[in-house]
Amino acid sequence: MIPDYLSLDIPDSDKPRLVIVGGGFAGLELARNLKNGPYQIVLLDRNNYHTFQPLLYQVATSGLEPDSIAGPLRKAFEGFKDFYFRMVRAEKVDSQLQTISTPIGTLRYDFLVLASGSKTNFFGLEEVRRRAFPLKKVVHALNLRSHILQNFEKAVLTSDKLNHQRLMNLVVVGGGPTGVEVAGALGELKHHVLPSDFPDLDFSDMKVYLVEAGSRVLSAMSSKSGSNAKKYLEQYGTEVILNATVTGYNGETVFMKNGQHIESHTLIWAAGVMGDLVEGLPDLIVDKSRILVNEYNQVINTPNIFAIGDIALMKNHDSPNGHPMVAQVAIQQGRLLAKNLKALFSKSQMKAFEYNDLGSMATVGRKKAVVEFPRGLKFGGFLAWLLWMFIHLISLIGFRNKLVTFVNWVWSYITYDKGNRLIIRTFDKEKTSPVEAG
Amino acid sequence: MIPDYLSLDIPDSDKPRLVIVGGGFAGLELARNLKNGPYQIVLLDRNNYHTFQPLLYQVATSGLEPDSIAGPLRKAFEGFKDFYFRMVRAEKVDSQLQTISTPIGTLRYDFLVLASGSKTNFFGLEEVRRRAFPLKKVVHALNLRSHILQNFEKAVLTSDKLNHQRLMNLVVVGGGPTGVEVAGALGELKHHVLPSDFPDLDFSDMKVYLVEAGSRVLSAMSSKSGSNAKKYLEQYGTEVILNATVTGYNGETVFMKNGQHIESHTLIWAAGVMGDLVEGLPDLIVDKSRILVNEYNQVINTPNIFAIGDIALMKNHDSPNGHPMVAQVAIQQGRLLAKNLKALFSKSQMKAFEYNDLGSMATVGRKKAVVEFPRGLKFGGFLAWLLWMFIHLISLIGFRNKLVTFVNWVWSYITYDKGNRLIIRTFDKEKTSPVEAG
Repeated sequence: MIPDYLSLDIPDSDKPRLVIVGGGFAGLELARNLKNGPYQIVLLDRNNYHTFQPLLYQVATSGLEPDSIAGPLRKAFEGFKDFYFRMVRAEKVDSQLQTISTPIGTLRYDFLVLASGSKTNFFGLEEVRRRAFPLKKVVHALNLRSHILQNFEKAVLTSDKLNHQRLMNLVVVGGGPTGVEVAGALGELKHHVLPSDFPDLDFSDMKVYLVEAGSRVLSAMSSKSGSNAKKYLEQYGTEVILNATVTGYNGETVFMKNGQHIESHTLIWAAGVMGDLVEGLPDLIVDKSRILVNEYNQVINTPNIFAIGDIALMKNHDSPNGHPMVAQVAIQQGRLLAKNLKALFSKSQMKAFEYNDLGSMATVGRKKAVVEFPRGLKFGGFLAWLLWMFIHLISLIGFRNKLVTFVNWVWSYITYDKGNRLIIRTFDKEKTSPVEAG
Repeated sequence: MIPDYLSLDIPDSDKPRLVIVGGGFAGLELARNLKNGPYQIVLLDRNNYHTFQPLLYQVATSGLEPDSIAGPLRKAFEGFKDFYFRMVRAEKVDSQLQTISTPIGTLRYDFLVLASGSKTNFFGLEEVRRRAFPLKKVVHALNLRSHILQNFEKAVLTSDKLNHQRLMNLVVVGGGPTGVEVAGALGELKHHVLPSDFPDLDFSDMKVYLVEAGSRVLSAMSSKSGSNAKKYLEQYGTEVILNATVTGYNGETVFMKNGQHIESHTLIWAAGVMGDLVEGLPDLIVDKSRILVNEYNQVINTPNIFAIGDIALMKNHDSPNGHPMVAQVAIQQGRLLAKNLKALFSKSQMKAFEYNDLGSMATVGRKKAVVEFPRGLKFGGFLAWLLWMFIHLISLIGFRNKLVTFVNWVWSYITYDKGNRLIIRTFDKEKTSPVEAG
């Protein structure tokens, strides 16, 4: 319920007004690089915090609390002048009037940057959308964590074999980094954490399935990394099912195209993402839920609207199908756009975006990961895991988040324990669709 | 929704079965002191964690995350034999049949210990109960935190003077330790944390009120400690209103018996607690929501039922009106009852409970606290604050909680910052009553 006394009034400024939609990697990087620059900045976000999405799966699997991977946006903009953060959802662009509307009013802009990121793609499977757990928001991760822990509490309370199996089975769909990492973390829970918590359960009954439509996991990495990741998963007893497409889920049984099915109360959907669009954009510029931009991240035919990060689709020589929807692209586009907007203001030439691929990595539970650098170097195992941790630690925003995460990781490493297995809010997927839960 | 395949089947044992209702301070201490002893133990709790209630107010005021002050119950009982934790609500005792019923079935007991603690007492004020924020559960603290942070986000979005004031005013009712500590922490937020977050708000508009029905705060402590606490609160600009009874709250205005009223969207109710009873107990043994027990914590006329902690009312020579409803009493009763139950089993004499008052303390924001030892020594200020932190740190259960809390406190001390000001779940008190929110 939005009280009727709220309104969106931003004081006028001598500077042109730049409205940024979304405080994810792209929007945050852009705004920070425009500190006290030539624009008045208004940042709109539904949440008052930035989410470090690559570690969401650790919140879901009891490894970290939200305060480790999310940081208050206002804190990031301490000391900024002519800067306004407003916690409100951007709804609709009107590029004629140069306004963006929200539930509490309409805002005029001189320049608009859409950095609204991506959301889970259920590929039109309505039944799956209603009952599967996505992993794009902090609240998704917390609900999934509660759900998993509740399932084990229920498993000790039933003598019904079929439902016991459904409670102990966990199905992850999607063999990309998120799917692999969450499946790995579940394997870690199964082997190192849950058995001492639940002496009255037999954890050989706990089965983790990773279902992937393609012929291998981590298809964006080399086949060596893919097969290493698969091997690590299988060492935890995870069943990796390849070339299998999920077609339906009734909350108890996962159905696949090949006729196979898996009994499970838990379906984790990491099979794909799509742009999280605002309304009002002409169909012309939207291509498969992403916004077509030129090499300056400028929206086609609209010189004062830009799109960066996951939502932007830039088809150029190094990316005929657009760039991957990952944090590095978002950060680099945000950083460059800050420079380009300054150039635009001073009427200098803008610079075309070139993606600098820093490599990719994925971890599979304790002491195992795969790492690839762009020019050939690929390795797996313990060293890759240390590097994975180091890179993620230094990438976290703010020293406090680094510190809290580091303490948690050291603790887990030494004790084989995960501290955060509290069911603070029970979650009932039969009552609320996980993707819609607030 | 409770699935119909759940049931409460505990394997039979050669040992007599002891059912403990509640894993708070009393139940936890009792069960841990009966490790692998003469009884089969079944512990029932609605939650899968123990809550360190004295620090709940820090969760509410963005100082700590739940994982710092709550610990998984199963972890506390690692390695226990013939011990069963079941996450389920105990509903009704049948002392004739010697059973306790739950939503998923009925459990036979040989001995029953009621340690269900206390809940917020709204003194029959239904309007207050519906809209005020209690502080007895982790979820209460999280909802209150979200609500407070949302209020400031709304305050930047309104030009309506009255509602702006309602958003910036916070009213705490009850001058006991909880009320004083939460009011102190709000003062700290006002002075050290929020102004840099919200440069577009004037924090001299933020008013914290502490309303107490009696003539002083901390009435269980000396008048010197009371006046010190009041002085510290006033140094933060908190308005302490004494001799004032709250009579109603419509969600916007707090009404008092003396005709005064305060405009506020936030009423924090720390005015009192009452026993959280299970059903089925004869009226005879219930006195003002607590269960009458003898000096062995044995329920009157029912030798195989015991009550310990907040729920127990023991009127003996040192406590004509019962003991204070505090953690120390619960812990000491839990510990003694473990001994007495062993004595009962070996047919030796049980020992009468004598409360060993270790003193009391309360903190008021940064670097200020009051401390009293039972035999005269009383002091306030910085040293009291250090002692307060030390005592609370060592009292936290488990090394991990001590560590995470310590890191957070050192961080806050050095940076004047509170890390946890994320609005993960927006909370709307007009839609859900805070006391009932799950």
